[in-house]
Amino acid sequence: MSRRRQIYEGKAKILYEGPEPGTIIQYFKDDATAFNAQKKGTINGKGVINNRISEHVFLRLSHIGIPTHFIRRLNMREQLVRQVEIIPLEVVVRNVAAGSLSKRLGLEEGEPLPHTLIEYYLKSDELQDPMVAEEHIACFGWATHEEMQDISSMAIRVNDFLCGMFAAIDIRLVDFKLEFGRIWDQDYSRVILADEISPDNCRLWDMNSGEKLDKDRFRRDLGGEEEAYQEVARRLGLLQGEDGPGEVFDLSAHRSKLRTTPAKPKK
Amino acid sequence: MSRRRQIYEGKAKILYEGPEPGTIIQYFKDDATAFNAQKKGTINGKGVINNRISEHVFLRLSHIGIPTHFIRRLNMREQLVRQVEIIPLEVVVRNVAAGSLSKRLGLEEGEPLPHTLIEYYLKSDELQDPMVAEEHIACFGWATHEEMQDISSMAIRVNDFLCGMFAAIDIRLVDFKLEFGRIWDQDYSRVILADEISPDNCRLWDMNSGEKLDKDRFRRDLGGEEEAYQEVARRLGLLQGEDGPGEVFDLSAHRSKLRTTPAKPKK
Repeated sequence: MSRRRQIYEGKAKILYEGPEPGTIIQYFKDDATAFNAQKKGTINGKGVINNRISEHVFLRLSHIGIPTHFIRRLNMREQLVRQVEIIPLEVVVRNVAAGSLSKRLGLEEGEPLPHTLIEYYLKSDELQDPMVAEEHIACFGWATHEEMQDISSMAIRVNDFLCGMFAAIDIRLVDFKLEFGRIWDQDYSRVILADEISPDNCRLWDMNSGEKLDKDRFRRDLGGEEEAYQEVARRLGLLQGEDGPGEVFDLSAHRSKLRTTPAKPKK
Repeated sequence: MSRRRQIYEGKAKILYEGPEPGTIIQYFKDDATAFNAQKKGTINGKGVINNRISEHVFLRLSHIGIPTHFIRRLNMREQLVRQVEIIPLEVVVRNVAAGSLSKRLGLEEGEPLPHTLIEYYLKSDELQDPMVAEEHIACFGWATHEEMQDISSMAIRVNDFLCGMFAAIDIRLVDFKLEFGRIWDQDYSRVILADEISPDNCRLWDMNSGEKLDKDRFRRDLGGEEEAYQEVARRLGLLQGEDGPGEVFDLSAHRSKLRTTPAKPKK
């Protein structure tokens, strides 16, 4: 395995050539970046947790008929996935105003949106991932009209499923980012869900305390990133098997910095 | 007329209450602003020329069946228009990459776009007119789906007409901005073209020399704004009546600053 070929190193993952043609190994790093990599750091154990959470979410999504690139988890930090031709768009689904949307449109963070909003950003580090509209996507041919229909309907289904899944564990799904890729069968291609779904690319707020259980803890120097990521995995029931009973989640050291209601007692 | 009520003062125009209900007087100022009013100045005679050009263009557009707010020109700087409920969107139609699009997507200025591109920006000085997509417009209810269909199909027709009109006078229509408004008839509303169409909100390049005949001369400190605006009016045949034969257009004093091919001899 040490001689395997690296295909790409991103900000949070490394991609290696997989064991068979058309497969890729996704290695999850602990590296964390924000603001287009202007801010860099490490969240200990993040790669292990995101590998596990993303496996869980992608498997569940496949059960409702969303085609994904996920094949199987290989070990603590790696998963085998299908090789795709990545569509150069970040698809952001928003239920509640936060982050760049709040800033851009002057909306208070936490304000529920009148309805779910899908935004598209061009994947370009150099251009700092500018927002684009379907008109730009059509004009420059980044995806076809049919692909955009598939993408938007899958994004809505993923949102509905994830809202339900997180609501069941007292987490509010504020927004998240998806990426899609094409797979080819002879001359025909179809679009499948790629990349990962984890607290790196979701905004997850505790429904009772309002505490952030996602990468905003890193972006905004709130501290407690590791505990927050673990808490999401614990509530999803993903820590028991390997790590014994989940640790008690305690962000109290950081709580004074947060605009939250008092935390409810742990069950 | 001195006691008439001012309704609104914008960056380039003042709106007064019109003589009859449902009418407005648009007064065209010489004030020029750029970059969301961070840069301010004056272009002598601009208001007079834009009043004349916009009258001409709106009349011609009404002849091809585009409904507009224009009623009639009143004098050198004023025109009577229908009062509308303005739709808070700037509709930008682009044929060639330039300005903010070039910067945002890393496209060279002057590169023709694969096809005509319509962009929408939220009219908000405070938020610096952020770009929005149809998803935002629907989500926040700034316009209905039906209104957006009317707006986009009118924008395409206006573009086709203006491309032809300017091509006839050796001007390349690079891009332009439109605004639309609602007029109500009982409980029903319809969308009509509002605001103005002039070198203030169009990018107009001489087809032979490439010289800019629009507000970019002011934005980019190229000089010769007055001559450029006059030249557009002259080529449209709008200066003869009031001002005798059009002046010969000479930007030679500013030419050294421009990336252009040598100007062709004046006819």
